[in-house]
Amino acid sequence: MSACCPVPSVQTRPFIGQKAARDSSGAQPDQQTVQALRNIAARLRINSIRATTAAGSGHPTSCCSVAEIMSVLFFHSMKYRPEEPRNPNNDRFVLSKGHAAPVLYAVWAEIGFLKESDLLNLRKVDSILEGHPVPKQQFVDVATGSLGQGLGAACGMAYTAKYFDQASYRVFCLLGDGEVSEGSVWEAMAFASFYQLHNLHHVEKYQRRCEAFGWQAVVVDGHSVEELCKVLSQPRHQPLAVIAKTIKGKGIQGVEDKMGWHGKPLPKEMAEGVIRDLQSRMVSCSKRMYPAPPSEDALPVSLRNIHMPCAPTYKLGDKVSVAVGCAARDRNVVFASTFATFFSRAYDQLRMAAISESTSTCAAPTAASPSGLCFIRTSRPENNIIYNCNEDFHIGQAKVVYKTNDDHVTVIGAGVTLHEALAAAENLKKEHINIRVIDPFTIKPLDSKTIIDNARATRGASSLWRTTTMKAVWARPCAPP
Amino acid sequence: MSACCPVPSVQTRPFIGQKAARDSSGAQPDQQTVQALRNIAARLRINSIRATTAAGSGHPTSCCSVAEIMSVLFFHSMKYRPEEPRNPNNDRFVLSKGHAAPVLYAVWAEIGFLKESDLLNLRKVDSILEGHPVPKQQFVDVATGSLGQGLGAACGMAYTAKYFDQASYRVFCLLGDGEVSEGSVWEAMAFASFYQLHNLHHVEKYQRRCEAFGWQAVVVDGHSVEELCKVLSQPRHQPLAVIAKTIKGKGIQGVEDKMGWHGKPLPKEMAEGVIRDLQSRMVSCSKRMYPAPPSEDALPVSLRNIHMPCAPTYKLGDKVSVAVGCAARDRNVVFASTFATFFSRAYDQLRMAAISESTSTCAAPTAASPSGLCFIRTSRPENNIIYNCNEDFHIGQAKVVYKTNDDHVTVIGAGVTLHEALAAAENLKKEHINIRVIDPFTIKPLDSKTIIDNARATRGASSLWRTTTMKAVWARPCAPP
Repeated sequence: MSACCPVPSVQTRPFIGQKAARDSSGAQPDQQTVQALRNIAARLRINSIRATTAAGSGHPTSCCSVAEIMSVLFFHSMKYRPEEPRNPNNDRFVLSKGHAAPVLYAVWAEIGFLKESDLLNLRKVDSILEGHPVPKQQFVDVATGSLGQGLGAACGMAYTAKYFDQASYRVFCLLGDGEVSEGSVWEAMAFASFYQLHNLHHVEKYQRRCEAFGWQAVVVDGHSVEELCKVLSQPRHQPLAVIAKTIKGKGIQGVEDKMGWHGKPLPKEMAEGVIRDLQSRMVSCSKRMYPAPPSEDALPVSLRNIHMPCAPTYKLGDKVSVAVGCAARDRNVVFASTFATFFSRAYDQLRMAAISESTSTCAAPTAASPSGLCFIRTSRPENNIIYNCNEDFHIGQAKVVYKTNDDHVTVIGAGVTLHEALAAAENLKKEHINIRVIDPFTIKPLDSKTIIDNARATRGASSLWRTTTMKAVWARPCAPP
Repeated sequence: MSACCPVPSVQTRPFIGQKAARDSSGAQPDQQTVQALRNIAARLRINSIRATTAAGSGHPTSCCSVAEIMSVLFFHSMKYRPEEPRNPNNDRFVLSKGHAAPVLYAVWAEIGFLKESDLLNLRKVDSILEGHPVPKQQFVDVATGSLGQGLGAACGMAYTAKYFDQASYRVFCLLGDGEVSEGSVWEAMAFASFYQLHNLHHVEKYQRRCEAFGWQAVVVDGHSVEELCKVLSQPRHQPLAVIAKTIKGKGIQGVEDKMGWHGKPLPKEMAEGVIRDLQSRMVSCSKRMYPAPPSEDALPVSLRNIHMPCAPTYKLGDKVSVAVGCAARDRNVVFASTFATFFSRAYDQLRMAAISESTSTCAAPTAASPSGLCFIRTSRPENNIIYNCNEDFHIGQAKVVYKTNDDHVTVIGAGVTLHEALAAAENLKKEHINIRVIDPFTIKPLDSKTIIDNARATRGASSLWRTTTMKAVWARPCAPP
């Protein structure tokens, strides 16, 4: 069983992309279309088997179970420019069951973006075709493979489409049934229904659960291109879970629906026999399938030189994977915020965000994110305001916040300890002892020059810290100059 | 809204504990019982307010919303020996919404296990009454406070009751509505229904979701002791979610159902006024409520000197929090096993397991767990068998697995690298170069003596490692003697 979750966007406008799809291909595909899609599915199987057998590892049976779904999605339902996989107007696709990567690569070879011969380099150290999807591949937005996380990222993309971009591109997410056990999937399900992301898709047990979480849930035969074409072309007003009943290893004689074949490539001779069998069952067909172009309504976005005339209004939703989805294709500067210790439960999502090369920022918003994942720690208590609204901050540049011409020592504090240092300075002043106070602003990178210069100008430096993990960072500037 | 999840155990036998409950207290409590339970609820509110106001921090409104639930659970529904909170026959209780700890402490003061005056030491550095429940308190089995994890631990306890202990004690878990957004709660819901833990309890949206996840779900007024007594005394054959509609800060005039009071103690004068108001509304009642004793059918378990004549049969369920629940009260030696990298998604559960002083073991089972959390890393490939079944292993004791009287160097390998070292030894032997191979068995603690002694006896030591994080560990024995 595979669960396929398209997340079409923009509820308040007509689905231009979706309408075009129905006009051009129709809910009931003609026999030529059906045969062409079946042949594509067969070729996806063949190339998945070839690649994994060449690599000596991988998951051919997981690829074969979704061949028809991938064929219908990429050659019938989705609207995108295959020559520009990152075009902002394209429909998005997230392969949450990342171990089925070879079938995704086979799709992009079928489209012509990859060379078929490249597929045989799967998992080689100098190939971009890693065992699981990564964003160094132009057709991948977020890294997947750690199961249960793709739907959260898809939600972030669908949220961006509907609420920020207000564009008609849709998001499709393919999940395996195993990962539906992951709680993160149900967090994402709740998120999508709360925000009415009627631009997402996900069998009986699952149907009831999906419906309880606010999704429309439809069960189909995942190997019937007719059923898949029909369900994916229906108009929708809430997130749609297409629960596709599939057979693991479908199309591989002797392996189909058998235990013990997960994550195992076929031995070379066996693979050759299976490929001959798959080829013999293909029916000749002259029709060439090609994706319909998307609507051109996702306006260009520049994330450089952002100025905010006032504080932003915050939206609910502290899911790290959703943040990663929102940041995809540089559509948003995203901040995921919670108490620092609570981020520890998103450890794996943060790990995958780093592999996804995400620019999302964790903790409370105080600065636009530079490239790469960024962590900002702010304070909970209501402290005094130190800087005015026009203060200019730069990463790696400390601020001297308290200073006289006759300071005895330099004290460095960050967060709440900065306020304690300022309070100490005021108290010591009453005793006619002057101290200098530095706000390092960023810990990584640390403005060593400002710290050392001021420590030299005074009689040494001292620092205040709250947690043992910061000790290593702080030990450096603490040595007397 | 608070969700209360009793998880009674042992489906295949009559509920002795539960029957006794119904016989002694009845589904429809008499008026005296109702009044006595209401008075207890009022005293729980008063003591929660007193403690948090004295501490100057804490969550009195979260305590007040569950006062009737705690009163009915501890003084009507649950069977336990209050003088022995860890008696194995006792019903278990997990306060998943750990920030309501003061109401739990107030319960144990009401029972007489804690002194009422102790409650005023809440959150003091020398008091065991921390801001959140921890197992240094005799009446707490697992640490809570990181929301969404209590139900998993409760599942582990209910699983142990039903399948291992085959005893009639039940498990009750109290969740707040906020934490029901956590995916880990739905993982636990699926676990409980899969294993038919009809010994667990959890409003409309939630009712549908609970039912979709295989639970019986009943909605009640969480401030009605009559409704709570009735629903908690019903016989059950599947996990029961009692979805209790409650009002945050119930009973605190001017605060009840108001925003902005989460996690804030009442100022001293206000607290005194609220306490006078609560006291004035109590109705005099001579009935003294006391918990019924449990059935004595949880046999003593000793986890020392365990010998297994054959390999165990493994059960499904890789949830870390369930493992922590199974290990509670030293009822089981538990191993939670998955690929090492996948444990990163259970980072927060492992953090809480350490705070819970859990003895559960992560990774593949090769040794019984010593005290405290233990991590064992094993290998995926099918390697040769190095040791026979009778080999005796000791933590911190390395094994010399390959040795001659004329070895040039000592090579240390762990896991897959040990097999590589043995292969190298065989290859080098053909070239008449002898090497010694050591299996350190445990990395922490490391058997430095064996390593140094053998390095001295040869001409130095070298080690093989797979991950950069192990470098620090390995650097030590690598220096030549």
